[in-house]
Amino acid sequence: MTRARELGLGCGDLPTGARNSIADVAGVRVGHASRTEGDLRTGVTAILPHGGDVFRDRPRAASHVLNGFGKSIGLMQIDELGTLETPILLTNTLSVGTCGTALIRRAIAANPQIGRGGRGTVNPVVLECNDGFLNDIQALAVSEADAGAALDDARADFAVGAVGAGTGMSCFGFKGGVGTASRRLRLDGAAHHLGVLVLANFGRAGDLLLPDGRRLAPPAPPAAESGSVIVILATDIPLEHRQLQRVIRRAGVGLARCGAFWGNGSGDVFVGFTTADRVDADGGGRGGGDFAALRALAEGRIDKLFQATAEATQEAVLDAMAASDTMTGRDGNRRIGLRHALGGAA
Amino acid sequence: MTRARELGLGCGDLPTGARNSIADVAGVRVGHASRTEGDLRTGVTAILPHGGDVFRDRPRAASHVLNGFGKSIGLMQIDELGTLETPILLTNTLSVGTCGTALIRRAIAANPQIGRGGRGTVNPVVLECNDGFLNDIQALAVSEADAGAALDDARADFAVGAVGAGTGMSCFGFKGGVGTASRRLRLDGAAHHLGVLVLANFGRAGDLLLPDGRRLAPPAPPAAESGSVIVILATDIPLEHRQLQRVIRRAGVGLARCGAFWGNGSGDVFVGFTTADRVDADGGGRGGGDFAALRALAEGRIDKLFQATAEATQEAVLDAMAASDTMTGRDGNRRIGLRHALGGAA
Amino acid sequence: MTRARELGLGCGDLPTGARNSIADVAGVRVGHASRTEGDLRTGVTAILPHGGDVFRDRPRAASHVLNGFGKSIGLMQIDELGTLETPILLTNTLSVGTCGTALIRRAIAANPQIGRGGRGTVNPVVLECNDGFLNDIQALAVSEADAGAALDDARADFAVGAVGAGTGMSCFGFKGGVGTASRRLRLDGAAHHLGVLVLANFGRAGDLLLPDGRRLAPPAPPAAESGSVIVILATDIPLEHRQLQRVIRRAGVGLARCGAFWGNGSGDVFVGFTTADRVDADGGGRGGGDFAALRALAEGRIDKLFQATAEATQEAVLDAMAASDTMTGRDGNRRIGLRHALGGAA
Amino acid sequence: MTRARELGLGCGDLPTGARNSIADVAGVRVGHASRTEGDLRTGVTAILPHGGDVFRDRPRAASHVLNGFGKSIGLMQIDELGTLETPILLTNTLSVGTCGTALIRRAIAANPQIGRGGRGTVNPVVLECNDGFLNDIQALAVSEADAGAALDDARADFAVGAVGAGTGMSCFGFKGGVGTASRRLRLDGAAHHLGVLVLANFGRAGDLLLPDGRRLAPPAPPAAESGSVIVILATDIPLEHRQLQRVIRRAGVGLARCGAFWGNGSGDVFVGFTTADRVDADGGGRGGGDFAALRALAEGRIDKLFQATAEATQEAVLDAMAASDTMTGRDGNRRIGLRHALGGAA
Repeated sequence: MTRARELGLGCGDLPTGARNSIADVAGVRVGHASRTEGDLRTGVTAILPHGGDVFRDRPRAASHVLNGFGKSIGLMQIDELGTLETPILLTNTLSVGTCGTALIRRAIAANPQIGRGGRGTVNPVVLECNDGFLNDIQALAVSEADAGAALDDARADFAVGAVGAGTGMSCFGFKGGVGTASRRLRLDGAAHHLGVLVLANFGRAGDLLLPDGRRLAPPAPPAAESGSVIVILATDIPLEHRQLQRVIRRAGVGLARCGAFWGNGSGDVFVGFTTADRVDADGGGRGGGDFAALRALAEGRIDKLFQATAEATQEAVLDAMAASDTMTGRDGNRRIGLRHALGGAA
Repeated sequence: MTRARELGLGCGDLPTGARNSIADVAGVRVGHASRTEGDLRTGVTAILPHGGDVFRDRPRAASHVLNGFGKSIGLMQIDELGTLETPILLTNTLSVGTCGTALIRRAIAANPQIGRGGRGTVNPVVLECNDGFLNDIQALAVSEADAGAALDDARADFAVGAVGAGTGMSCFGFKGGVGTASRRLRLDGAAHHLGVLVLANFGRAGDLLLPDGRRLAPPAPPAAESGSVIVILATDIPLEHRQLQRVIRRAGVGLARCGAFWGNGSGDVFVGFTTADRVDADGGGRGGGDFAALRALAEGRIDKLFQATAEATQEAVLDAMAASDTMTGRDGNRRIGLRHALGGAA
Repeated sequence: MTRARELGLGCGDLPTGARNSIADVAGVRVGHASRTEGDLRTGVTAILPHGGDVFRDRPRAASHVLNGFGKSIGLMQIDELGTLETPILLTNTLSVGTCGTALIRRAIAANPQIGRGGRGTVNPVVLECNDGFLNDIQALAVSEADAGAALDDARADFAVGAVGAGTGMSCFGFKGGVGTASRRLRLDGAAHHLGVLVLANFGRAGDLLLPDGRRLAPPAPPAAESGSVIVILATDIPLEHRQLQRVIRRAGVGLARCGAFWGNGSGDVFVGFTTADRVDADGGGRGGGDFAALRALAEGRIDKLFQATAEATQEAVLDAMAASDTMTGRDGNRRIGLRHALGGAA
Repeated sequence: MTRARELGLGCGDLPTGARNSIADVAGVRVGHASRTEGDLRTGVTAILPHGGDVFRDRPRAASHVLNGFGKSIGLMQIDELGTLETPILLTNTLSVGTCGTALIRRAIAANPQIGRGGRGTVNPVVLECNDGFLNDIQALAVSEADAGAALDDARADFAVGAVGAGTGMSCFGFKGGVGTASRRLRLDGAAHHLGVLVLANFGRAGDLLLPDGRRLAPPAPPAAESGSVIVILATDIPLEHRQLQRVIRRAGVGLARCGAFWGNGSGDVFVGFTTADRVDADGGGRGGGDFAALRALAEGRIDKLFQATAEATQEAVLDAMAASDTMTGRDGNRRIGLRHALGGAA
């Protein structure tokens, strides 16, 4: 597995975390389930915010829709209530419903009061990109079992590239996939982390910009952008909901610096969460009572997080491409791995 | 089937359409599938905007989220692109994924290019309320076949009350369900219609306001609002997307006049569409070319539509309650029909 | 000065604060400057969130635009940064610029670093309604001195009705103006308050609904709604920005229950702030450091605040009308005071 | 006056209009008034969408707030009603009120019915950046006469650089100002234009990226971003409001490619308008009647406009810097012109 930095594709000035991964945020783990039999090139990727039950121990969260041409679910409630209630799943566009049902079934199994006694239900969060170029997406092949397998596979040292939900994705005419990056920030004298995981399936062939300003010759005939990109951001820095929204919005900077203009067909959607100051199922703090204590960042320090988000997002996209080999899929459709093209360009 | 007006619960000043129903908008049809075996009190309701294929012949549409404590899908893309690509399904909260998958499968069957050749996928629209008080919602009983049955059942003369998605709903401590109402408006010398269909599952016991100002004694002990309400608005009046958003927002007026304060637990979501000036799958008009002709309402006339939306929404909620008999459901939980209570109140 | 409750126009179930006024929130004060010479019927109303310097000691704040047909200033930054930097001024539509400049000049006088040394500037907040029916609004008569006089007049026991910014306002065809109401809430065993002040200048003649369900015969010929309404909400309850946005949105419930459908021409704008857990000019807490401690409400308790907002807004509108006498203004235009009409209706 | 292209700083692939300016959109004109006496380095820039009276002949318009840390006025109504009612003024942060009043006074002079007879008022649009580093912004020196002078100066061949509102602006530690660029697009067989004008006052010293990927050595010590950037977009392409919002949002791509991460202190605000299919003061089309005919772009063609917006915005920022000489202002504060630095970097 080649990482972006091994190809000289690191981005920006801030120091990375130890893994240069979303799992540098303590507790965050990622799992994959891949489906590659026959014409299938698809799968599921799971992001778990911590090791406990997310329904009962909810991270504060926010979302930002840069381009709503997409079919993700769960965002509406994230921004109304400001919390996650389940792990986050990524998959292909037509499998969102199945993955959502899988999250619901798991949440009920662990919390039998869901849907009983007026305590409400559960909000599954599933985001997607269209892998239909390489994958027989019409097969609706992803199952609840695949979703479960991705959740069960969660680990801090996870694979990137053409794996899980990234299996069949394309990016700037090259092979896309799952990528990650992180940045380390010092606040009040202690180390904190901000990490990003992307499902990269966007960008017109010919538009890719490398960090040194080179534009890479198109590996495929130019075509209208028809992909999407999902950015999941995790941090251990305490932020209120409004601040988290401001931070994740800056993922758009990273995408623009990769050469994208946020094309019409690209559903660009960002979800961020902090592991700090979590709330219980009633929306309160851990101590009970009518009020929950939390911390917010002094707004004057937020530029560090903006910069970290821009850098990590740009690099995570390149990381997804760096780790992906050339792949042939449905009907012989083919995407070249960036490594091979870089060999030619260098 | 008792309608709100038969109980003296008509609202407002504007004239109704012939059916006083969303189907007064020509072409709009509604179908139901109900599941009432054992502890199930649930189902699916389908709203079809016209008689053709919605994926190829797209109504202009918009949504408004009054309270995002809900799990509806498809709204994000409606507001990015301003169109519907499928019929609208209503169901219980935990069955959204299954109904979405059903819509996808139908769309692919009729349009085999979906997910092939870079033409993108399809955006299913499914909205929901939590019927868990009367229904064994944990059973996840709604199937793709139920969704198909609701779509196949579509007709202009459809049932209201405890039917389809409305089967197990509750409203202000009474039995809720599906209700409808319409208003007739004259513009440029011709008759036009604006119709509303609600899935009414909201309101604290004791808070119900009748149109004459009476507040109805609580049929059930007061409890935190934990339901939701979905409002689907249809019109044949040409509107641009911005105007459609302004119009559907006024559904909130109707809810407030019923006695709701848009409670924390009530995911209040509105979707509106116009059957005028539809677009093709490329987002263009029927004649091809780079531009599509449409008409917008002169903004100075829009108050009529605001008033119609407020009146029809308020009345559709009362219509859902008027048509619903007392029901006993899961674990002997019971909701009184409004008719019985009105007998006592009168 | 007659209050709404003296006319039997109290709204809802929750107990009021001692003054039934926004000033029941400790520290909040209100001042007026009125201009009634010749054809002028206008003025300025100031809301001060606390007794200190607002630029250095910033209340957390949020806004909600129900209908953006209006010219208020300062809202954009309130929702980006979540704070107030100046007192809030209310005035007529064409005097917003002058009042904004007055707030800037005061802020600079007290904080000479504004606009120097890269520390940014100051965000004046001014909201408005169109008093052009009774007032010669074209005269642009409101001066910076009037704004200063309103600020200097601030007090806890302030006048309501046709005074300050309310001098020339109209409401449902009657005389409108400034009104207020409050509700007392118990949280974590202590008394808290939520108060509302409205500048009421909205509603079609003939549409007014009284709390008992009566609709009041039109005192003026029906005409298109062309006014607006501003709602300022204050509380001492700790809320994060997202929660404050949810709370103030419920002001729309109060307006709907008064009989409005949020007409096209009515710019309906709400601003709320909490006096709890304020921040300094750098966006941090009082203790310095990179993080600020704050408290949020356990979300499950927020319905109390929603109900309080709905009730207090409805009552504050009626309070504005109750306290206003019949007025004749520009060109002999005349608005009847609600008291006189109620005499006839009773 | 040196343009960006003369320094080799052209951006992107699409052809420019004849002037490479916002005035390539037929009818659009720009005027400036500059104030440079003593410690003043400030002014006003006016953008006129067409040669007629904007209050009676309204361009369809939309806005997008990328970062709301700013004090612009008029945006709220633009997005509610979708039109401009006045020319657009740009100025310094503390002069917004005065410029707004100037626009109101002009509109009344030309339309004496404003504020009379229930026909509403007028919505002035003024946007701003903080020029306080070079300018004595506390002087509040900009007058209504300056605003009038900028409006009267409007022409198709206008100056860029340190002129009008751009006089005292800074950008990436260099001298900023006003810049412009345009792109020519072919639709339905005819030439159309999309033009951008920026007021560039943003970016941290050291972060500037040139189109060839070079990062320019900081001319000033790094400091927190405390500026802002305003982007005005004009086009003759027919678009509905929703589409115009999508298009102007892509200005953020251009800013990111210049090296910005949309810093905390930078109020980044975009306003766009189309000169096609304008509406009258009642919101209707030219022919009267209840409906207005308009055209929308087939959504599948919108990527061209996204790309044009990204390219033109990036280039307009560099254009503002290219045309600006080194300037010394308030208290001897100094900003180097980019030309001088490029000499050293080349």
